[in-house]
Amino acid sequence: MRGIHTRLVLAIAAVLTLAITLVQPLRLSAQASKDEMAIRTVLEAQVAAWNRSDIPAFMESYENSIETTFIGKTIAKGYGPILERYKKNYSTHEQMGTLTFHDIEVRLLPATTGPTEYAIVTGHFHLDRTTHGTAAKDDGIFSLIWHKTPTGWKILLDHTS
Amino acid sequence: MRGIHTRLVLAIAAVLTLAITLVQPLRLSAQASKDEMAIRTVLEAQVAAWNRSDIPAFMESYENSIETTFIGKTIAKGYGPILERYKKNYSTHEQMGTLTFHDIEVRLLPATTGPTEYAIVTGHFHLDRTTHGTAAKDDGIFSLIWHKTPTGWKILLDHTS
Repeated sequence: MRGIHTRLVLAIAAVLTLAITLVQPLRLSAQASKDEMAIRTVLEAQVAAWNRSDIPAFMESYENSIETTFIGKTIAKGYGPILERYKKNYSTHEQMGTLTFHDIEVRLLPATTGPTEYAIVTGHFHLDRTTHGTAAKDDGIFSLIWHKTPTGWKILLDHTS
Repeated sequence: MRGIHTRLVLAIAAVLTLAITLVQPLRLSAQASKDEMAIRTVLEAQVAAWNRSDIPAFMESYENSIETTFIGKTIAKGYGPILERYKKNYSTHEQMGTLTFHDIEVRLLPATTGPTEYAIVTGHFHLDRTTHGTAAKDDGIFSLIWHKTPTGWKILLDHTS
């Protein structure tokens, strides 16, 4: 009886170990899909805000911090200066035009311990418009560094060229 | 006697708590200084490698991964293609010239739990040279995303414009 009991316990332990081994990567990859989806949703909201000429709503994707950085022709540092830069460079609905993103790639930056808190997005943008302000580019490449905050994924660095 | 003993234990506990509270941020900031110093040292080694026209040594600062990305006029993905791009665009000592970095800023990206594993570097570069290959720019801005690996801090994204 003792032998059968031990073998039963060992068999249950083996099945449990196998189940945990199989489920853990699925759980992690489910979280990764969730993070990527959350970032793509913020990008879609950002495009929608731009296309209704709502710069403050567009800016909600950026982390509200004095460290948040935008690199264009020059480096702008801080949420306030970045907002002012957008307002100055795109002062009318016509100058803003219609924005589209393409070839978006999301790369999560996993931590050795703990959850994923940072991610990179690379992609191309296109502006369809008839009038230009101080910002001349209609097409370009961007790289964005994202931070997972209590209020969602936010951009802490935007380099557009 | 019992009361004195309890008060002594409480006093020691209070002193220990205070000591840990004071020491912990110092320990964290010492680690942050160490990380920033390590990244700056890699950047200095990178400049030195460039200035002796040693592209393979220059490339050692990049993570040897198919995911490593260089954004210039276009997006190059993978360590191999990035190396080939440098070799093609800067094929002689004269085309490489003398590289300097300035206004370097290091921003560590701390994790909620566990050690800091990612960082951003922004800065300007200048190339002092007499001959140009297929890469025309002598001055520009870059943003680099770094990853702390078992073999040191490595660049996983370089956006230069």
